Amino acid sequence: MTQLTRTQVVIVGAGPAGLFLAHLLHRQGIESVVLDTRTREEIEQTIRAGVLEDWTADLMRELGLGARMDREAHFHTGITLQHGQTRCHLDLMELTGGKRVTVYPQHEVLRDLIAGLEAAGGQMLFGVRDVDLREVTAARPRVTFRRREDGPLETLEGDFVAGCDGSQGGSRQFIEGRTEYQKVYPFGWLGILVEAPPSHHELIYARHERGFALLSTRSSTVQRLYIQCGAGEHVSAYPDERIWQELRARLAAPDWQLTEGRIFQKGIVGLRSFVTDRMQQGPLFIAGDAAHIVPPTGAKGLNLAVADAVYLFRGLEQFYRDGHRERLERYSETCLRRVWRAERFSWSMTTMLHVDPTENAFEQRIHVADLEYVTHSRAAATALAENYVGLPLDG
Amino acid sequence: MTQLTRTQVVIVGAGPAGLFLAHLLHRQGIESVVLDTRTREEIEQTIRAGVLEDWTADLMRELGLGARMDREAHFHTGITLQHGQTRCHLDLMELTGGKRVTVYPQHEVLRDLIAGLEAAGGQMLFGVRDVDLREVTAARPRVTFRRREDGPLETLEGDFVAGCDGSQGGSRQFIEGRTEYQKVYPFGWLGILVEAPPSHHELIYARHERGFALLSTRSSTVQRLYIQCGAGEHVSAYPDERIWQELRARLAAPDWQLTEGRIFQKGIVGLRSFVTDRMQQGPLFIAGDAAHIVPPTGAKGLNLAVADAVYLFRGLEQFYRDGHRERLERYSETCLRRVWRAERFSWSMTTMLHVDPTENAFEQRIHVADLEYVTHSRAAATALAENYVGLPLDG
Repeated sequence: MTQLTRTQVVIVGAGPAGLFLAHLLHRQGIESVVLDTRTREEIEQTIRAGVLEDWTADLMRELGLGARMDREAHFHTGITLQHGQTRCHLDLMELTGGKRVTVYPQHEVLRDLIAGLEAAGGQMLFGVRDVDLREVTAARPRVTFRRREDGPLETLEGDFVAGCDGSQGGSRQFIEGRTEYQKVYPFGWLGILVEAPPSHHELIYARHERGFALLSTRSSTVQRLYIQCGAGEHVSAYPDERIWQELRARLAAPDWQLTEGRIFQKGIVGLRSFVTDRMQQGPLFIAGDAAHIVPPTGAKGLNLAVADAVYLFRGLEQFYRDGHRERLERYSETCLRRVWRAERFSWSMTTMLHVDPTENAFEQRIHVADLEYVTHSRAAATALAENYVGLPLDG
Repeated sequence: MTQLTRTQVVIVGAGPAGLFLAHLLHRQGIESVVLDTRTREEIEQTIRAGVLEDWTADLMRELGLGARMDREAHFHTGITLQHGQTRCHLDLMELTGGKRVTVYPQHEVLRDLIAGLEAAGGQMLFGVRDVDLREVTAARPRVTFRRREDGPLETLEGDFVAGCDGSQGGSRQFIEGRTEYQKVYPFGWLGILVEAPPSHHELIYARHERGFALLSTRSSTVQRLYIQCGAGEHVSAYPDERIWQELRARLAAPDWQLTEGRIFQKGIVGLRSFVTDRMQQGPLFIAGDAAHIVPPTGAKGLNLAVADAVYLFRGLEQFYRDGHRERLERYSETCLRRVWRAERFSWSMTTMLHVDPTENAFEQRIHVADLEYVTHSRAAATALAENYVGLPLDG
């Protein structure tokens, strides 16, 4: 005998997709419960980079969650592309008619979303266990779980389930007849956090014969830096001095010095592109990393998750307003149009900026020509910029 | 004892690079002799497609060679891109501020160049034999040859040698310390000539799951059509009916019918990208296909050869005017900037439009996304258009 709780939308996963969806629904008076196996502390303390597209930052403000972001974030009106020792500034604002990006780490976004939802009386259950998704596509979809290891089994029943449980989550498995597209890149990123003031006023994306490097910023005292490394490498292969050598070589430019400092975090991630070509099954809708992964080069992952949440919200809002399911029925199609555009952009930034050891010399040289073209053609620069600041949301 | 003839510039090869160069030099009063192992008839009758960039067509007119082109060529202000059954018209003229392309076969261009040079008293020797290039980089560079099989050995000595002898020619071998970049694509083009009126008013570039197709035009009664085929395939594998089946499938669109007719020519070509990163050695300068090859998808080969000829002419003109060699010394560098841009464009058109059996499903789907993006973003469409009509010649 389990305890049964009813809600309108069961949201599995308290990441960007799940929490934005909960906020959007709450604002419209649609009830939801957000479940996550991670504790609130784990979610809030898992350090992840974040570049918010212009409309994503606006949505934070619209939801009443923009105050801390507007105080603490860095607003970038341009990016720098580098090849060899040559740098080129792309003026995003000028190229896109006034748009910019907001550098605000993902875990800070999540802290604001969680605090805001708590203050508004939204329901979130963190650190739940034994989550069972087997009935998420049933006529009355439900999720069972325990609040504590020794707690009773509880059932949460909704009209709909939003699977926002990330790339390793279980919800995707319930989408029948899906095709999955994947590319695993033959390289990874070694990322570090450094106690140092900024070396440059905007992000630098560098292609160098030794590999990609990215100079990013966290705050006025902490910098985020990345270098391309081998796909299977371990951080132990990268003592601090080796990392600085690589960064100095790859980011070297005339009359410029990299600001160095104590490295207090070091980690390697693999790079992967992934798309599921169906994102819904009956009452189950999946969103964000549960449905698609982009390599971080285009800074699109967080924004894509939020776009899915907006599209799903629009479908649910239509349903609860007048009972129509048109938008819900087109959910996959609507999301995937944007998803493939972001996948394309992330793939093109990744191939343009990394040295792929599986490519021959001609193909590698073509990517140098890509970079050269983007920095010399206004049309090509505009195409890069419009993707970087974020393509508009469809209808 | 051989007969010695002196000229200023020895031009090896009567293709687009060599003949445009001869015209440009002749107009400036600089003497040249053009040599080719092929007969005039072979050169004029080897049917090859041709799409002239806007400036290339203007150069024909400037040289007084535009009359027949302006009567007989097709001027295209746009192209059509197709995926599945969806077509999208790119208005080149509107996207580039008034530029268009001229569809005029390469052998017609060559006929006009040869007739024009002959009329102007330029020296051309066709069907020469036993061409020996061993001294093309000597202080007094020279080429030896015979006019007829049983003729005497003659020597042509110049201040400079222009190696315009195509991808299989010997002149490239004399450039020391060069690096060659190459990609051989895992597919080819089966091209046909058909007795039929045009099916469409502009070129159609189609990506289809069965492979690429290109609908082009030759005249009001002859059409040029291409389909992607396997890299090693032979025309015997393509009876007419199979070709029509493939064309009907790949070019199918609502309310449209392919005009069919008698196929009177059929051939398969492989697709290859190739670049030599040095195009000069002492008095020897190579130009056109001798230095670089592009796959035909971007219609850039002829135009790149003409650009090389213009850059080489500018260097020679400077030298003969005031003895300075600055432009000649920068010849490789100047050419290669444009070459890599054209290689990039040709590579991107090729990968976007062909089904590459060595790519995985994700990579293939990305190219569909490329096509979708190009047809939906004005910036991306402009980038494609500015390359298709031809980037401006550098200083």
